[in-house]
Amino acid sequence: MNGVMKMVPPELEEGLPLERIEDFSLEELLGMAVKAEIGARKFYQSLAERIDIVELKEKIEWLAGEEKKHEELLRKIYANMFPGKEIVFPKEHIGPELQPVARQLHGVQDIIDLIRWAMKAEEIAAKFYAELEKMVDTEEKKRLMRYLSDMEWGHYYNLKAEYELLLDWAMYSQMMNVGP
Amino acid sequence: MNGVMKMVPPELEEGLPLERIEDFSLEELLGMAVKAEIGARKFYQSLAERIDIVELKEKIEWLAGEEKKHEELLRKIYANMFPGKEIVFPKEHIGPELQPVARQLHGVQDIIDLIRWAMKAEEIAAKFYAELEKMVDTEEKKRLMRYLSDMEWGHYYNLKAEYELLLDWAMYSQMMNVGP
Repeated sequence: MNGVMKMVPPELEEGLPLERIEDFSLEELLGMAVKAEIGARKFYQSLAERIDIVELKEKIEWLAGEEKKHEELLRKIYANMFPGKEIVFPKEHIGPELQPVARQLHGVQDIIDLIRWAMKAEEIAAKFYAELEKMVDTEEKKRLMRYLSDMEWGHYYNLKAEYELLLDWAMYSQMMNVGP
Repeated sequence: MNGVMKMVPPELEEGLPLERIEDFSLEELLGMAVKAEIGARKFYQSLAERIDIVELKEKIEWLAGEEKKHEELLRKIYANMFPGKEIVFPKEHIGPELQPVARQLHGVQDIIDLIRWAMKAEEIAAKFYAELEKMVDTEEKKRLMRYLSDMEWGHYYNLKAEYELLLDWAMYSQMMNVGP
């Protein structure tokens, strides 16, 4: 671990703290959630394209696919709650907003930094959906928000696991059969 | 929710409580862990074969593949710590031991029961690896145990998410595009 850990990669905007959720309507928050899922998918897709470690590449691609499903689910929830309305995407976002990775990555430290931010984004997303659970009115909608929150916690722990091992690259490459 | 929730499906043995971990050597515990990963893989594989809900089937198959990777990783850790020794598989196991699903499943309640038990097994596995982290002696091995623990937490939350929605089957089938 070193000072590099504190750098914010260019793919990230830190966004608003979770408490600011109170400043928005449920409709705006659902729009934000859809936008966040799209951002996360593009982030993971572009990250996967830049990673050669097969094991990790596949995991990141899997995450991209998961976020796509969440986007679709959220669009259905929105259509159900606000029939016939176009989704409004607020300019603001709660928590780190993930952007596509456009640069070449150099070495494992770049990957570690991005995964650490993805972990942060997943953690905030999990808490965000837990807050939405309190705001929606039916047991059915609460259940869907719990589903999304739990899924994001699942992503968080999955990324955390990889992150842990990546910090010891020599071991990661040995244990994960990464090699020429 | 109803009384069925309390039933123990035939695929499960409850196993020893986590505290009993102290009664075993590290070598025995690693053997137990390998056995548990094999059991979990066979459980998920057989469960996936009996589920027609595509979305859920794929998730369960994914879990089976993950447990396979964990088994391989544990075998490497074992070989590294006890070179040249055959793995000893203790008869005992900590937490619910998952067995292959050999029966026909009838309706969603059977699936819900099995997923609830898988959640329990994943939760105990996550805590089991966290205990092993305390027992192993190098930072490298501790890291590997954290990796495994985090991965199992990832599985736990992933299953919990599906479990939540399955409890409202009408909604699950609508939201997940489950059709005839």
